[in-house]
Amino acid sequence: MARVVVIGGDAAGATAASGLRRRLPPEHEVVVLERGSWTSYSACGIPYWIAGEVGSPHDLVARTPEEHRANGLDLRMGVEATAIDRGQRVVATTDGDLSYDRLVIATGAEPIRPDLPGIDADGIYGVQSLDDGQRVFDALFQDPEHVVVVGSGYIGLEMAEACVVRGLDTTVVERMGTPMPILEASLGEHVADAMRARGIELRTGATVTGFTVTDGRVTGVETSLGPLPADLVILGLGVTARSALARDAGLELGVKDAIVVDERLRAADDVWAAGDVVQSFDRVSGRPVHMALGTHANKQGLVVADAIVADLLGETPRLSFPGVVQTAITRFCRLEVSRTGLGEQQARDAGFDPVVATIETTNVAGYMPDAAPMTVLMIADRPSRRLLGVQIVGAEDAALRIDTAATALAAGMTVDDVVMLDLAYAPPFGSVWSPVQVAARAVVKQLDR
Amino acid sequence: MARVVVIGGDAAGATAASGLRRRLPPEHEVVVLERGSWTSYSACGIPYWIAGEVGSPHDLVARTPEEHRANGLDLRMGVEATAIDRGQRVVATTDGDLSYDRLVIATGAEPIRPDLPGIDADGIYGVQSLDDGQRVFDALFQDPEHVVVVGSGYIGLEMAEACVVRGLDTTVVERMGTPMPILEASLGEHVADAMRARGIELRTGATVTGFTVTDGRVTGVETSLGPLPADLVILGLGVTARSALARDAGLELGVKDAIVVDERLRAADDVWAAGDVVQSFDRVSGRPVHMALGTHANKQGLVVADAIVADLLGETPRLSFPGVVQTAITRFCRLEVSRTGLGEQQARDAGFDPVVATIETTNVAGYMPDAAPMTVLMIADRPSRRLLGVQIVGAEDAALRIDTAATALAAGMTVDDVVMLDLAYAPPFGSVWSPVQVAARAVVKQLDR
Repeated sequence: MARVVVIGGDAAGATAASGLRRRLPPEHEVVVLERGSWTSYSACGIPYWIAGEVGSPHDLVARTPEEHRANGLDLRMGVEATAIDRGQRVVATTDGDLSYDRLVIATGAEPIRPDLPGIDADGIYGVQSLDDGQRVFDALFQDPEHVVVVGSGYIGLEMAEACVVRGLDTTVVERMGTPMPILEASLGEHVADAMRARGIELRTGATVTGFTVTDGRVTGVETSLGPLPADLVILGLGVTARSALARDAGLELGVKDAIVVDERLRAADDVWAAGDVVQSFDRVSGRPVHMALGTHANKQGLVVADAIVADLLGETPRLSFPGVVQTAITRFCRLEVSRTGLGEQQARDAGFDPVVATIETTNVAGYMPDAAPMTVLMIADRPSRRLLGVQIVGAEDAALRIDTAATALAAGMTVDDVVMLDLAYAPPFGSVWSPVQVAARAVVKQLDR
Repeated sequence: MARVVVIGGDAAGATAASGLRRRLPPEHEVVVLERGSWTSYSACGIPYWIAGEVGSPHDLVARTPEEHRANGLDLRMGVEATAIDRGQRVVATTDGDLSYDRLVIATGAEPIRPDLPGIDADGIYGVQSLDDGQRVFDALFQDPEHVVVVGSGYIGLEMAEACVVRGLDTTVVERMGTPMPILEASLGEHVADAMRARGIELRTGATVTGFTVTDGRVTGVETSLGPLPADLVILGLGVTARSALARDAGLELGVKDAIVVDERLRAADDVWAAGDVVQSFDRVSGRPVHMALGTHANKQGLVVADAIVADLLGETPRLSFPGVVQTAITRFCRLEVSRTGLGEQQARDAGFDPVVATIETTNVAGYMPDAAPMTVLMIADRPSRRLLGVQIVGAEDAALRIDTAATALAAGMTVDDVVMLDLAYAPPFGSVWSPVQVAARAVVKQLDR
């Protein structure tokens, strides 16, 4: 009989633990340590709860601690792992030492808090866990006069929307020239237009240099373009892997301090890691990346469970994690935004010779009522004609088209292959050439020039 | 200098001719013969024009004869090809003989009119060309008391919707047990429910045996389940290739009398064919199929132009048509329907050992407002674990998910590959596992049982 200890009870940890419990004979123990007060929740849903679209944080919970326990998990809430002794195979926790035979590290990520003057003042929040979300939620109901969101990635954008929906005066500060720097600037301009149209004060090209603090509370944000009043600050600067525990245990860290794992998510003998804390590989460039997303965490949880079951029972593992293509999607009010693969600079950095084409089309056939514009940008490699990336902004039904491109990227298709795909067409769903194919044809035209 | 003659001025013909005109030096002639009164129109838009969603048939025209002529095409409207002399390389037309150096046959398809008593009566219409559409449109404004739609495929369904939207008493007769027999029956039931909820009288399991006719006009439909009153009948029984001209010229016909072509759409020396008149190959089964769809016609038009340009100029062709995966999509009122790949019986017929799983999920995260149900059915091959087909019915944003499956089919992915795809996720767009992946996981579970 063996004991598997899983550190972390959210997406990756809970998925791994549930899979282990389901597939391991009952004599094996599966123990989950969760330092917070929630399990298996949708962190991505936090902005929609704060905006009022979702009634309660409980709605975001896929499985409660009680439900996990009913499924046979030994789940220990409020218990934090503080050290790992890999030689002795013991995890030190806030509730005493716990020996393990196999260990899963799923400690997740935490919002980046830059080391700036005043950063520790009250009223400055990151948003990663439901507990973080509750703090922001409570702060919003103290009627802040000026909200400043620092950073305009997905979380920054979604939180800014939630604040204006709540009727608050909201400013977004972005270091780059356009919001959502994960998009090419030409598409970021569409997002900027939508933000301003919704009443958000957008300050691009502005670096935050510090915070003014009065009586321990934030009262303003200092930027390279001047000061901004602020009694609530939300950090949307991305996240960093919570890998200190792994580092202290001597595990190898890679990009952005994420734990280095193999394709079965093994970090070392008897130790696996999954979710926001691990490094992945980009399937297009072959390069290591850190992508903290629930979609990967869930898949990796499955892979870890499969790997440990195979290891303990002497079976052949069935699953491996093939890497990511950096797909992401969001909505700002009615503007949908998505991207997959490499951006132009990423492509260049990875040694490709990128060709870029941008096309305008409509979400439904142009002659249908409610036809609305959408913009598709496509990047391909000149010599190999291989698809490298796609980005989309547009109205209803625009952004999900990205899945076609993400699938084509996973298959290593050329733009010529994309042109010849048998994609769905009827007038209420688009034009006879799917938007992704219209973009592919534009790239082909450039390549064949 | 050479003369290319293109027979047919809709999707395939006009695309081929435009590509030829753009890429051939001006001393080469490109002549297009179009027997009807329209060019380059969206036949798929006809039901939406008839329903009143699109104001005029002119809105469905992508390029008028005048626009084609302005682009340098020698377009001859109202001229029909009546015979091809391949030895002499001459097309006989209603406007005299015309010699050619290269010939493109793009004569399209026509609605199936079964040889039943009374089929030639006034008031019985197929819907394939804009001219057909105009006849139905005019008939609808003569206030028919009872419309009967025969067949419940895409056209039947869309025309039935147009009729109920127009406030007409509408009955649909379907030979099979559920409407849209291209769907598995379990999904067809959802369509049946939606049709009945919209006030359509649906008669399934009913074979049409003839028509009652009074003074040359249809007055009823005879079915195996009894007679139905009808003063307007719309045939939605699918289409058949308009290949008599090709057959009489000695060209080989295949499935459903469609012209046999190679992957560059060549039918014989100096003769190419494209669009609804040609046979394609299914990329999953490798078997010949006849799929009359504008998406294929447009792609094939490109391939034909490329092939003839290469042939005339001594270049290497760049394009080939890789076949289809039988993707199709439609909407019945608010119910979206799509499918791709093989159905269960098709899979069995093609020698696969199909495993089928059906899952229920929501179009957006379950906790979001407006979450609506969707059903995904997936078919895979047991020994190879290869994805064979996907079918979807559901509310808003459901049906376009089929493109992910269509792309995965083109790439020959297994269901395990689909589970590990990096597809887009944010709460307004679905759950952390995309609907297609939820279905793939259900199939995997069956395979690993």
